[in-house]
Amino acid sequence: MNSTRQSRFDAIAAAMGHSFAGEILIGGDYVSTQRHGPQVFVSGQIPRVGTTVVVTGRVGSEVSLAEAQAGARICAMRALALLARALGSLDRITQLLKVGVYVQSAADFTQQSEVADAASALLHEVLGPAGTHTRTSVGVYQLPKNAAVELDLIAAVE
Amino acid sequence: MNSTRQSRFDAIAAAMGHSFAGEILIGGDYVSTQRHGPQVFVSGQIPRVGTTVVVTGRVGSEVSLAEAQAGARICAMRALALLARALGSLDRITQLLKVGVYVQSAADFTQQSEVADAASALLHEVLGPAGTHTRTSVGVYQLPKNAAVELDLIAAVE
Amino acid sequence: MNSTRQSRFDAIAAAMGHSFAGEILIGGDYVSTQRHGPQVFVSGQIPRVGTTVVVTGRVGSEVSLAEAQAGARICAMRALALLARALGSLDRITQLLKVGVYVQSAADFTQQSEVADAASALLHEVLGPAGTHTRTSVGVYQLPKNAAVELDLIAAVE
Repeated sequence: MNSTRQSRFDAIAAAMGHSFAGEILIGGDYVSTQRHGPQVFVSGQIPRVGTTVVVTGRVGSEVSLAEAQAGARICAMRALALLARALGSLDRITQLLKVGVYVQSAADFTQQSEVADAASALLHEVLGPAGTHTRTSVGVYQLPKNAAVELDLIAAVE
Repeated sequence: MNSTRQSRFDAIAAAMGHSFAGEILIGGDYVSTQRHGPQVFVSGQIPRVGTTVVVTGRVGSEVSLAEAQAGARICAMRALALLARALGSLDRITQLLKVGVYVQSAADFTQQSEVADAASALLHEVLGPAGTHTRTSVGVYQLPKNAAVELDLIAAVE
Repeated sequence: MNSTRQSRFDAIAAAMGHSFAGEILIGGDYVSTQRHGPQVFVSGQIPRVGTTVVVTGRVGSEVSLAEAQAGARICAMRALALLARALGSLDRITQLLKVGVYVQSAADFTQQSEVADAASALLHEVLGPAGTHTRTSVGVYQLPKNAAVELDLIAAVE
């Protein structure tokens, strides 16, 4: 690809209508990212844009698969934005290692993998081969702030 | 033990009536295993044999404890099969570090640890002392493809 | 702070009326802690004091937010007690990396982050800056022994 990771991130952000810059600040007792040698841990991200969680509710009843996938993409963008800020550049990610996807599910909703696929595809699209990862997706009963989906990850970095 | 890890794996697989060879291929945006230096991450495994998820439904109502334990054992065998393929041999596992067990639970089912015990025992049986691990077991609301149980892990390797 | 990590741990334990010494022994196929080089993994802890799980039930209906927070603090103390035992001293923790908080939730309970905050604050209080961490908190459907909350973590150690 001639494009850079950052330019691909920016193009997706532009299509989403949000820059993912600046608002992702938490403080106090826990942090958004924690580096340990060549690994960076990223806290669970919910589909928040600015101060609003934009995809809420139970997937399979209140929330459609497509809406949940859009939410998963926002979570993935937030995780990338946090990594870019922590590392200075997305180019310092050598490999995603593990992605966890938690879907607030209706009792009979069994397409958690399909929700997670949307995040996996975005991570691969932005980072190229470094964006492939192992993954665990489960259907949980609730998520903070009634978020429809939450995503965390571990990345290897240079 | 005079037997080898692989021979113990093969004996269990034979008793289960399945080789766990060949069918565990996923591709594209995520992968079954990802190595990072001395650690290997394994994606969440559901009790799939060939192309069929063989233990589905909610544990404690539709699925018995014994059936869920059988499912957990299949998940563990799949994880071992993936590690063997990624590493060339089960003998290259120096220590399991962390196992996560996710049980699709009925509202009042509280024996998630007992489900996980079946996977832990199998891992210990095949790998010996290297098979002990830390563990987190939780009761989730749904799992991909209506699986009754899902298992992921992190292993230390040489 | 002039106080030591252990003295702060002891003060909290005294206020809780429990020493967290001695009873945290599991054996067999899985273990409470597993060290791998500079990382220690801690198994999922439920709010057990001695042999009793002291905060059980579904948060948001049977269990109040305050009770769940008390449970999360017990889980965090247990994790610290296990780390102290495994390492010889809490002073050998250089940084908490990742904390997972699993809250057995009522269908409409969305304050999983607030439950987790109680654990995060305690970890920070005892360990100082080394106690900050990334975090993922989710609402699960059930937990082992009907526990209201479960917590696991990964720590960096010297």
